[in-house]
Order: sequence, then structure tokens, then C-alpha cells
Amino acid sequence: MKAPVVLLTDFGLSDHYVGVMKGVILKHKPKARIIDLTHGVPPQDVRAAAFALLASVPYFPKGSRFICVVDPGVGTARKLIWARTKEHEFWAPDNGLLSWLPIKEARELAVPDDASATFHGRDVLARMPKGGKKTDWVRLPPPGAEVLSIDRFGNVVTGLRKAKAVAGLPVRRTYGDVAPGEALAYVGSSGFIELAIRDGDYARAKGVKPGDKLHAA
Amino acid sequence: MKAPVVLLTDFGLSDHYVGVMKGVILKHKPKARIIDLTHGVPPQDVRAAAFALLASVPYFPKGSRFICVVDPGVGTARKLIWARTKEHEFWAPDNGLLSWLPIKEARELAVPDDASATFHGRDVLARMPKGGKKTDWVRLPPPGAEVLSIDRFGNVVTGLRKAKAVAGLPVRRTYGDVAPGEALAYVGSSGFIELAIRDGDYARAKGVKPGDKLHAA
Amino acid sequence: MKAPVVLLTDFGLSDHYVGVMKGVILKHKPKARIIDLTHGVPPQDVRAAAFALLASVPYFPKGSRFICVVDPGVGTARKLIWARTKEHEFWAPDNGLLSWLPIKEARELAVPDDASATFHGRDVLARMPKGGKKTDWVRLPPPGAEVLSIDRFGNVVTGLRKAKAVAGLPVRRTYGDVAPGEALAYVGSSGFIELAIRDGDYARAKGVKPGDKLHAA
Repeated sequence: MKAPVVLLTDFGLSDHYVGVMKGVILKHKPKARIIDLTHGVPPQDVRAAAFALLASVPYFPKGSRFICVVDPGVGTARKLIWARTKEHEFWAPDNGLLSWLPIKEARELAVPDDASATFHGRDVLARMPKGGKKTDWVRLPPPGAEVLSIDRFGNVVTGLRKAKAVAGLPVRRTYGDVAPGEALAYVGSSGFIELAIRDGDYARAKGVKPGDKLHAA
Repeated sequence: MKAPVVLLTDFGLSDHYVGVMKGVILKHKPKARIIDLTHGVPPQDVRAAAFALLASVPYFPKGSRFICVVDPGVGTARKLIWARTKEHEFWAPDNGLLSWLPIKEARELAVPDDASATFHGRDVLARMPKGGKKTDWVRLPPPGAEVLSIDRFGNVVTGLRKAKAVAGLPVRRTYGDVAPGEALAYVGSSGFIELAIRDGDYARAKGVKPGDKLHAA
Repeated sequence: MKAPVVLLTDFGLSDHYVGVMKGVILKHKPKARIIDLTHGVPPQDVRAAAFALLASVPYFPKGSRFICVVDPGVGTARKLIWARTKEHEFWAPDNGLLSWLPIKEARELAVPDDASATFHGRDVLARMPKGGKKTDWVRLPPPGAEVLSIDRFGNVVTGLRKAKAVAGLPVRRTYGDVAPGEALAYVGSSGFIELAIRDGDYARAKGVKPGDKLHAA
């Protein structure tokens, strides 16, 4: 059984776009096993997508192929690339999406003449071509003392891996170290420090938003 | 590897309904490969579902089987049908869902005695029976100068395939033909003209809603 | 073809958590066929998850394996269990999630030393270990004259299986038994009595919420 094709987009699930990408993948690779990483990246939020990749890629089988489409620049001149780490392969627009992965090699993808000018996910990336010439690629600055992402439970992922305290909260081991209703900081499952309220919603309670700066000690 | 079974419904993903349909499909066809086209059709919006099919079906492998459940009439007397085009097969309530596809043949599905009176998706359509007698089928009027659908990015899909300008905007080739923040019309990936703001949300900015009439030139 | 691995969580689909669980499952069971029951259980709502299981499990093939993660107690001392009914197997935190299933046997799962203190879904449950010693398990009280769940269409699922009338509405067979816009009660596809408005949204129209008490006759 071949390793999966993993999809990461900002397409959401209310339209037919993700379904169409899967149709095209199956036309070209009838045996592909397709897994959704998430399609809920906020529209055009390359930074949030880069974080989702960083937090997820190590948990996928060797040989997994990631197709990533968060693409504010569709219809403009930015490149599309194929890249690889030691264990995995990636197809993506060249906009920083792959910033925080240990990329070993990147090559530029040719855009076929018949591709839609507005849906490269379907027309280029879902065909999973491999690239032509070697290329340099775009990198975002590394994450730091700021809100990287807010999850469904209202837990706040920071860009910090090490600190004694963040936003005035000492870093604990797990939720059980505080009483229900109490706030805490802890090293989350992605390796970054998170802020949460046990059995509550930290982001809502504190009015926190992605990109907010945080005080760390 | 057999062509996929493709699901299109208005069930959403917050309930167990889609999961149950998949369970029933696997009970009857243990090797079926199931793909979600989308479950985010607005509740009971047959027209939006007909558009999603029109825009998606050509991208799926030959032999794909589409199970479509957007069914305001469940529990009343409307028919269930099996139909086919040259390349694909369809199971659906007979309410216009298949209107814009090149249907070659339609047959009426028998409803088993033990079917739930309120969940034909699970009890009839997920079993993928083939129909009995040939039947006529319901057709919606063709799409025209109106808002057919609004996608997650706020792009507005019109029912027009050809025009020089729509809503006062000349039809361009792609987003890159205007500056960020500027509005444009272009032929979208589905073959219909769309209205968008580059790096913005046209529908929200202009207060557009599905069904709104549009001026075309 | 082996019976599916079925996922039920409150993770939502906007984050990468569900994708990561699938990656870990495929690392350990490369041939697993993974089906989403739903990830839309309201955060930490064990009762809603227990209902989704009750309503869904009978429709899945014999041998299906359900991984259930709705886990207010992650990071505290509650157990993780493996359990089975006559036909299916379950992995879940021991918090009442499996209450309404005909469980034959439950065993306690060992938590590996390297597990994240905050994401047992990924670190324990997605590996699908089988348990050690036999264990007792937590049960919720049975459902009764109350709102168990509200679905995407605004239909209200009650905890009642038998009644002549609920909330003043006589129990009918199906939507078609009343005129469009009219309210009705009927035995829903899950076997419980539901309240709905034909072609409308009962919960919104009547201001009903999960947990509300209902009058039955």
C-alpha cells in the first residue's frame, strides 16, 4: 500500500473545490489514497498553513506526498514548486508555505498551457508533476513571541518553544496541573507553548487574535 | 481500482448523517472508494447543488458514481432516480438536481418497505440500487444573469458563460490583471463568469446574495 | 477488504488534529481504511457524542473499529479504554462516551511514556492498542424527555423513543403528513422522536437548546 497523498488548503469544505482536486488526482493516479490534513486554513493565511505543516508532517508515513494550496498569488507570476525533505515530498506555490520544513531540494513546476488562470490547485498541483530546474524558494521569518494560531477549543498556539512563563502564566506540564476554569501555559503537542483555560476558551476569554504579540520570560 | 463513489449532500459535517451513509455504502460495497464532493450545499438548495455537479463532474474519472442528496421533498411523493451520462452514473431525488448534466437515461428507483420515512440518503441512495422503469425527470431553468453561488473566498459565480462586462466590470483573464484590492470579472474555473476582488471578498464588500440579478453587457 | 476504522471526535475540521490522527493511524496500520463519522461534536459534549454513536454504529459493517475522542479530561487521571460489542470495537476515554452501546467487555489501555500530555487522540488512541486488565466503565443516565441534539436542519432530536405527543405535537409518520411551514413530531431515523418544521428550522423558530426539558404525553 503506497503512502498517502495529503491535502492542505484554505478551500474550506462548503464548495466543490476540494472534491474536484480529488477527482483530478484520481484521474491521474487511480490508486492514490487521499487524506485531508485540513482545508480550514484561514483564507490566504500562508503563515497558518506553514504552522499546520510543521506540526503535522512528522506524524505521516515515510513517502507521504503533500499537496498544499494556500495561494494568494494565483493568477500572478509567483512560481509553483516541488520540494522534498528526507522523508516526504511537497507540491506548493512558492510563497513561504514550506518555510519551516527541513527542505533538501526544490524544483520549479511547469504550468501546462491549458491550466485555468484561477485554479492551479486543480490544474497543476492535483496532477502532481515533478519539477524542472532547481530553484531557490521563499522563506517566512521564524515564529516568535506571538500568537501563531488559535484552535477550535480556543487554545492559543504561540511561536515559542522554550520559556519559563508566557503572558504571565508559568509553563506547566498539562491541564490537570490547574483547577477547572484556571488559565495555564504548557508545551503543546506540536512542540510550541500554548495558552489555555482548563475546560474553557482562552482566546475568547482574553480577546486574543492571530498575530498578537506576547510577553515571555 | 474501481472508479469512486462520490457524495454530494446538504447534510453538513456537524452531524453523523454523512458518516452513516458511508457505513451503509461499505456494508453493501465493501471495496467502494468513497470521495466527498461536498456536504456544504446550503440546506435544500437544489440549484446550488446542480451547479456544484455541473462544475465538478467532468473532472472525475470515467465510471464515477455520484450519490446526490439535497432533498426538500423527503417524506413526500417525489421520485428517486438513477440516471447516467455517457461517462458517469447518478443517484438522486427527482427534483432538478441533475438539470444541467447531459443525462442520457433515467430510471425510477424502488423504495424498499423498510426504508426510514425521513432519511432516504441512508436507506435508499446509499445502497445504490439501479432503477426499474424508464422515467422522465425534473429540469430547472438554465442559469442566467444572476448570482448562482458565492464561494468561501467571497467570489461570486454568475450563471453567465459569455459577456463583455458584468456588474459594470469588464471581463479579464485572471486576478493578476488588476491591482490588489481592485474588483474584476473573469471566466472562472467552472466556465462561468465570476466577480471577485483581488485579495478581497467581493460578496461581503458589495452585499451580494445568491439569486441576486446582475446587469450584463 | 478489512472493515473500516471510524473516527468520532470534537476536534472540528479547521485545525490539523484530525489529519494528524490519520497520519499516525496509517503509520501503524498502512492498509487501514479510515472513515469520518463526524468531527463536529460540540467541544467536550460527551452526551452528544454518545448519541452520535448510538445512532450510527448499527449501520457500519461488522468488525468496524471506532476511535472516539471527546475528552474533557485529557491531562487528568481518567482512564482510556478499549471495549467491544458483539459486532464492533471501540477505543475511547472512559467518560461515558460508550454509555448507550451494548458493551460486552472493557479493558484499560496503557498510556505509553512518550505520549503527549495533551493529545491522547494522536498518541494513544490513533495507535489502536488493545487493553490490559478488565475494567469497569462510566455510564451516563439514559436519555429522556429532553433535547438530545439539534441537527444542521434545525431538527430537534429528543431522548424519547415512544410517546403520543411531544411539546404539544402529535407524533406523525413523516414530513409529508403536514403542510410546508407546519411543525410536527415523528420517529426519526435514529429511533428517537424528533421535532421539526417541514421545510423550516424548528430549533431556531422555537428557540430550543440542547438539554432543554420537553413535555411528553
